[in-house]
Amino acid sequence: VKSDVELIADKRNGQILGEADIRRFVGEYAQGGVPDYQMAAMAMAIYFQGMTPAELGPWTDAMLHSGIVIDLSHIAALKVDKHSTGGVGDKISLPLAPLVAACGVPVPMISGRGLGHTGGTLDKLESIPGFRTDLSVARYRELVETLGLALIGQTAQVCPADKRLYALRDVTATVESIPLIASSIMSKKLAEGIDALVLDVKVGSGAFMKTVDQARELARTMVDIGQNMGKQTTALLTDMNQPLGAMIGNALEVKESIDILRNEGPKDVRQLTLALAESMLALGGVDPGLAVERLASGAGLEKFREIIEAQGGDPRVCDDPSRLPTAAERVPVVATRSGFISGMDTCGIGMAGVLLGAGRTRKDGVIDPAVGIEMAVRLGDVVEVGQPLAWVHHNNQGIETAGQRLTQAIRIEDTAPIVGPLIIERIG
Amino acid sequence: VKSDVELIADKRNGQILGEADIRRFVGEYAQGGVPDYQMAAMAMAIYFQGMTPAELGPWTDAMLHSGIVIDLSHIAALKVDKHSTGGVGDKISLPLAPLVAACGVPVPMISGRGLGHTGGTLDKLESIPGFRTDLSVARYRELVETLGLALIGQTAQVCPADKRLYALRDVTATVESIPLIASSIMSKKLAEGIDALVLDVKVGSGAFMKTVDQARELARTMVDIGQNMGKQTTALLTDMNQPLGAMIGNALEVKESIDILRNEGPKDVRQLTLALAESMLALGGVDPGLAVERLASGAGLEKFREIIEAQGGDPRVCDDPSRLPTAAERVPVVATRSGFISGMDTCGIGMAGVLLGAGRTRKDGVIDPAVGIEMAVRLGDVVEVGQPLAWVHHNNQGIETAGQRLTQAIRIEDTAPIVGPLIIERIG
Repeated sequence: VKSDVELIADKRNGQILGEADIRRFVGEYAQGGVPDYQMAAMAMAIYFQGMTPAELGPWTDAMLHSGIVIDLSHIAALKVDKHSTGGVGDKISLPLAPLVAACGVPVPMISGRGLGHTGGTLDKLESIPGFRTDLSVARYRELVETLGLALIGQTAQVCPADKRLYALRDVTATVESIPLIASSIMSKKLAEGIDALVLDVKVGSGAFMKTVDQARELARTMVDIGQNMGKQTTALLTDMNQPLGAMIGNALEVKESIDILRNEGPKDVRQLTLALAESMLALGGVDPGLAVERLASGAGLEKFREIIEAQGGDPRVCDDPSRLPTAAERVPVVATRSGFISGMDTCGIGMAGVLLGAGRTRKDGVIDPAVGIEMAVRLGDVVEVGQPLAWVHHNNQGIETAGQRLTQAIRIEDTAPIVGPLIIERIG
Repeated sequence: VKSDVELIADKRNGQILGEADIRRFVGEYAQGGVPDYQMAAMAMAIYFQGMTPAELGPWTDAMLHSGIVIDLSHIAALKVDKHSTGGVGDKISLPLAPLVAACGVPVPMISGRGLGHTGGTLDKLESIPGFRTDLSVARYRELVETLGLALIGQTAQVCPADKRLYALRDVTATVESIPLIASSIMSKKLAEGIDALVLDVKVGSGAFMKTVDQARELARTMVDIGQNMGKQTTALLTDMNQPLGAMIGNALEVKESIDILRNEGPKDVRQLTLALAESMLALGGVDPGLAVERLASGAGLEKFREIIEAQGGDPRVCDDPSRLPTAAERVPVVATRSGFISGMDTCGIGMAGVLLGAGRTRKDGVIDPAVGIEMAVRLGDVVEVGQPLAWVHHNNQGIETAGQRLTQAIRIEDTAPIVGPLIIERIG
């Protein structure tokens, strides 16, 4: 049996750690037997030396089994979830989960909150008056069984080792490690009780992965972990060089999600919702063609109404989005020159939303559900000087700096940009 | 001002940290403001990315000023110390320090204890009946002033940040980092109140540095730190592919040191003692030729007698080494074949001594001052089967495993080895 310091030295030296050693190390970390300073050194060594698939399997499994693994095996149907690595305006879970559930594939979804430039599904859902995401595991199981859908937040019982490690990575500059990102995501998702998983790996100026190569490596790593652990996993690499849809901000994104479920809304949100729904249906053993059909029939919207009501929210928002929180003011940010929209600092656009109060920079930050940004242009559009680029929905907080940030983030040039496809690649 | 996590990320990314940032980070670590897990991540990042001379200066200086820096400026003469990176049978400090002091260059020496295969000067000195190394800083200053020599142990007041960091590196696999080794050594030495320093950087099978390239890099790094901090520093790279002298073990090494001060003893110990003494005298502004003279005259031995008496020890050991602790048994380990002594696992020989009780594997281990190994052969010697390779001085502890370890560690082959010089290179 190797000691903790020998394992750290082995990883540091680029050796492959043994399965039993990994299980013991991670297991003892979860229980406080391995101190934070040793895990910090290990995480930094992993940052430099990586982990092989043979190591990532036991690492992820040990994280997964540091807490409860929810059992949904009493539900006969294949349960499928989706996870996105995070972007700006990425509200896809909101229309997607009810749509897939409406097609007969149960979606047990445990989501997170927003941090930094990316929003979080929980924050968006909670902008619906009354909506509760802090349900018990028992209620979660019941909802998946009866409605085919539950939309809840992480609980302390699930993956406690990941919670501890994530907080540690955040303060030790070890967040940006593909094996650590992949095992963190996969351990949390595999604890949900799913049979299969679709990953939406974002790439571009608003994503954590800036290049297709990085995104592909992360996707490949997560797909391998899932497959090795007996869960069908596919990943889509999707573009995040501009916000998804027009709306950025919690209530604004709920509104746009309802538009999608009404068979309306922006083309890109619709396209990605359908692509991910089709992937989920395929993994769930259901005809992928059902997605377009159930979107058109309103069955997806009906399912959204049901889950809102079941989780304590006001389902009338589906028919009357003005019941959602609304900002006091709506002001334009205008083009300072004419030309093509040639590029966007999408992360900067997300941070402009944070400045308004739509997101948080600290885990305990308070958000304003009403505020946000409504994009008026997309990459490749032609604009005249003075034309609105975006509308800022604000409550008199951060409007000036957010406006400056937006102006800087939306580039206008004389030549048209080359705009790549929304869905770049499928893996697994 | 950069945050702690930004500094760790910068180092991880191979950027050069700023002087003010380094001083703040190390200073706050010393006071507990930077937690161990962040320093562990930083140390691992330094392991991979190194530190430039521009970073090592403020890093070492911040370590140095985490505690008291002893002031010996009331002593007019240039004060010079020696530090060895550690080896097997390396008792050089014992004859060297009194010899240099006897030549008129004050030697303020703060030493450490043995750990693992290497011995420690404090343990060796304490095998002299009554000898105390836990003197106060006030008494240390007094002895340097009156006798030109003090031989004490580290105190809690000197370099507390290094103590904390060293303990952390030990459990996070970040010991083997040249910038961290160099800054640790130099911060402790520069806190002694010295004007100049001679470094003995060991290289070979009994040293931490296994290759000349590694040893040269460590030597160069330490010399640069010393010079940049205004202290004349030179380093000798010296061979540690076999034990120094014949004796390994605390009282045995004191005995051999006395032999040297009697102008007798093994050639290699004498050669290295004189080479280091000459370097120290040169830095101290004294004619290096004095070293041979004062060794021959017995002035060095007389100084050793004085310091033993001043530090509470029995000075009669200098005339009658049988007053030193003596092991109950002395048994040979013999050659199992004839041939040339072609190589030695010097670290293994050191560990054989530890098995007998001459050293410790844990910081709080207890040692037996009497036991040890008396080498009967050197590299290149011709031996017949059955001829003693070494004599084991033991007190009925670990004799069997120590004997096996010795037999394995001393290789006998048909062809003569190429034996390199004892003093390989001078740096600075």
